[in-house]
Amino acid sequence: MKLGEIAQRLGAELVGGNGDTEITGVAGIEHAGVSEITFIANPKYAAQAKTTNAAAILVEPDFPALDGTATLRIKNCYRAFAQTITFFYHAPKYAPGVHPTAVVDPSAKIGTDAHIGAYVVIGPDVTIGLGAVVLPHSVIYAGATIGDRFFAHAHAVVREFCRLGDDVVLQNGAVIGADGFGYARETAGGWTKIVQSGAAVLGDRVEVQANACVDRASIGETRIGDGSKIDNLVQVGHGSTVGQDTLLCAQVGLAGSTEVGSRVILAGQVGVAGHCKVGDGAVATAQSGIPSDVAANSVVSGYPAMDNKLWLRSVAAFARLPEMVRELRSLRKERSE
Amino acid sequence: MKLGEIAQRLGAELVGGNGDTEITGVAGIEHAGVSEITFIANPKYAAQAKTTNAAAILVEPDFPALDGTATLRIKNCYRAFAQTITFFYHAPKYAPGVHPTAVVDPSAKIGTDAHIGAYVVIGPDVTIGLGAVVLPHSVIYAGATIGDRFFAHAHAVVREFCRLGDDVVLQNGAVIGADGFGYARETAGGWTKIVQSGAAVLGDRVEVQANACVDRASIGETRIGDGSKIDNLVQVGHGSTVGQDTLLCAQVGLAGSTEVGSRVILAGQVGVAGHCKVGDGAVATAQSGIPSDVAANSVVSGYPAMDNKLWLRSVAAFARLPEMVRELRSLRKERSE
Amino acid sequence: MKLGEIAQRLGAELVGGNGDTEITGVAGIEHAGVSEITFIANPKYAAQAKTTNAAAILVEPDFPALDGTATLRIKNCYRAFAQTITFFYHAPKYAPGVHPTAVVDPSAKIGTDAHIGAYVVIGPDVTIGLGAVVLPHSVIYAGATIGDRFFAHAHAVVREFCRLGDDVVLQNGAVIGADGFGYARETAGGWTKIVQSGAAVLGDRVEVQANACVDRASIGETRIGDGSKIDNLVQVGHGSTVGQDTLLCAQVGLAGSTEVGSRVILAGQVGVAGHCKVGDGAVATAQSGIPSDVAANSVVSGYPAMDNKLWLRSVAAFARLPEMVRELRSLRKERSE
Repeated sequence: MKLGEIAQRLGAELVGGNGDTEITGVAGIEHAGVSEITFIANPKYAAQAKTTNAAAILVEPDFPALDGTATLRIKNCYRAFAQTITFFYHAPKYAPGVHPTAVVDPSAKIGTDAHIGAYVVIGPDVTIGLGAVVLPHSVIYAGATIGDRFFAHAHAVVREFCRLGDDVVLQNGAVIGADGFGYARETAGGWTKIVQSGAAVLGDRVEVQANACVDRASIGETRIGDGSKIDNLVQVGHGSTVGQDTLLCAQVGLAGSTEVGSRVILAGQVGVAGHCKVGDGAVATAQSGIPSDVAANSVVSGYPAMDNKLWLRSVAAFARLPEMVRELRSLRKERSE
Repeated sequence: MKLGEIAQRLGAELVGGNGDTEITGVAGIEHAGVSEITFIANPKYAAQAKTTNAAAILVEPDFPALDGTATLRIKNCYRAFAQTITFFYHAPKYAPGVHPTAVVDPSAKIGTDAHIGAYVVIGPDVTIGLGAVVLPHSVIYAGATIGDRFFAHAHAVVREFCRLGDDVVLQNGAVIGADGFGYARETAGGWTKIVQSGAAVLGDRVEVQANACVDRASIGETRIGDGSKIDNLVQVGHGSTVGQDTLLCAQVGLAGSTEVGSRVILAGQVGVAGHCKVGDGAVATAQSGIPSDVAANSVVSGYPAMDNKLWLRSVAAFARLPEMVRELRSLRKERSE
Repeated sequence: MKLGEIAQRLGAELVGGNGDTEITGVAGIEHAGVSEITFIANPKYAAQAKTTNAAAILVEPDFPALDGTATLRIKNCYRAFAQTITFFYHAPKYAPGVHPTAVVDPSAKIGTDAHIGAYVVIGPDVTIGLGAVVLPHSVIYAGATIGDRFFAHAHAVVREFCRLGDDVVLQNGAVIGADGFGYARETAGGWTKIVQSGAAVLGDRVEVQANACVDRASIGETRIGDGSKIDNLVQVGHGSTVGQDTLLCAQVGLAGSTEVGSRVILAGQVGVAGHCKVGDGAVATAQSGIPSDVAANSVVSGYPAMDNKLWLRSVAAFARLPEMVRELRSLRKERSE
């Protein structure tokens, strides 16, 4: 595809390059070859613009002029780069049709143009909207309600009575609505299982990635708001709520009845205790442990999570602890002399 | 259902209310509507008894009298609440029968009244007791032995020669008896796989939740005791043993040959190193890392895990580390003057 | 099997024992019975050689002589022990043949002697080498290329266009090549999914254990080098690379574009941030959090990860923090008097 055509399709301004240059693909700034296009979204990497082999770089409109390398200038150049990938990559297509091995209950209602793959099992009273792609071995339990353009990868599971909005994506092995971890202690010390009667409810445009689990609730519901994204191996405990456009990165764990706001980012392996609230726009850095409420728009780190800047100073001091112990001892000794 | 009937079925004492009040469902104390019943098991939430909209509250017998809101008084009111949920929620039922697509080896012995779902695969020499419910896509490998009233959700796996007691529940994607992570180092630096010859053995009333893994052992067995419960995404390494009525919360990891006692609670994301012992009744708070033995009935926190009370004081001081560094410097300076 | 035959098959020297002794199995040093064979690879456990009931112990050639217990002496005795297990344990065998319920696209090319189990789904243009064992419910997406002697346990998934070398093993629920967690932020605050166009590529002899996830890349590839082993519930983020013979223990998480070298060991629950490098031969102890580059052959611990020895001293001091706070206060007070 010619560089000029890419600029045109993106609506980007081509500066310092030849629109006839043939582009064969996309790549990261360090790995791009002479016929590839790359991007610089983070000013931190601006210096690499001078050493890359790329034929052209997608940059923000105010990026400094470059000698010798073409730039495509456009606002939100990272988003434009994401679009550029689709010019070159052709994902598998799934034509409408129901595979003869799919077991679909006669009472299930499935919208037009659905692709239902081999060995899919769809239970009684399920509703699925238009244009679904349900890949092999996915299982939709009784009474689940799912919106339009549902995309379920192989081995995804939606449990009984769960409700999913439009444009929901489930990666392989994602489990929506399995039983929460709820038991009442017997007087004799054992545990009685508490029926998990409440559904898991996902809003529009929610994506749940591979082998992640969003549990159903014992009472009420577990809710994930519109546009939120849940990475691999994340645990969302029963009765938790997550707002809109929030990111839960890989291996994050929310205990039960946790409330996470909108536009929150919980980085990898963060844990949040039950019954506590994370305010809108808050960010928790990787591996943080959150035992109590977090204010909106704050950035927290560590366990128990504290203000990120204080934490950075504290961990710097942590490595000096042995030295501090010695200094204290020495001060005490001098004092006693 | 009338409030009086609920009281009667639970064996609870109705105080300050009308037995004819119609109850439509159950809810948490904050969300309960005027025709719903709720509970207060934790005295911490007693104040909410005055503001809830609920028609009635399940409480312990010695709960203070309330003006205006009915109470149902019963010992272990949380357990009674769990029972109340079942009066209103109707989980899907699975009638006995073997789906025509199930692939059951002729040598497998399955007890009466079993529901075997679509695409279930049961290997040679498997034994399953009475009243099993095995949902679609579950796979039981050769030689597995399973007790009565087994319940396996879609995509559960039981590997070769594993032994499960009565009343075992596996949620979706739970894997019992996959190979442990065992390799012998080659002189040249590579790794030779060690055959994992020992089964994973689950006692009676064990529940393993979604996408959790209980590995088989290289030699000997991996054992989970009666009544223990394992939450989503937990890892139980090869050759580990867990006692009775223990709870392993979400994303807990036990390395190899770890010994966890009875009535232990490991909160979310706790890790326990190999070859170490956690005594009966111990509790580890969330994200603790346990590198060495933990005494029975102790409460530990942090990494490396220490006494919870000491840890609380230490993390409080941790946030003051930068200040301590300054103070030390200042004391030294004053001393040198 | 007679002890002498075991010695002969291993090429070990039998010292202080009778070759005619009948051995019935293998066991750990503490649990071995009088007709079992065990091993001592770690000198730490040498004292147990005197108390074990085992009929014989596999040891290194220079192990001290024992009274009363036979030893089999051989270099890398742990490896020899691993071999001994196979003399007694008979894993299920899977005879060549394609189960009639397997759905194999006509364009797929599968090598000779393959066992393709019930309900396996193999997509268009897939290539699999000789001697594969693909167990029930495994799904191989379009265009995947897999080498010889592939072993996939039930519910394993290989996504579109991924490439696997020879002798790759996937345990149950392992997902190779699911979408990475990549989104571009919209100006309005939402997230646009970035197409994940790059494959996940596994070298020869890679094993990925139960419910672990190796994501595909947005651009370029995610790569796991020859001989590396990935434990249960591990997350390998998109665009990451792992060298040769590296071990990622259970629940480890690599964020995006992380570079982990060869012969590295990341213990359980370790997290590594995106775009950072872990040098060859480095070791990170359990639960470490690695936010920046780690030098080759270093041993790191804690979060943020630091030199292991410094960390050990620092955590020792950490438990003394409350005492240090008091001492500082006291020094200040004395000074002011």
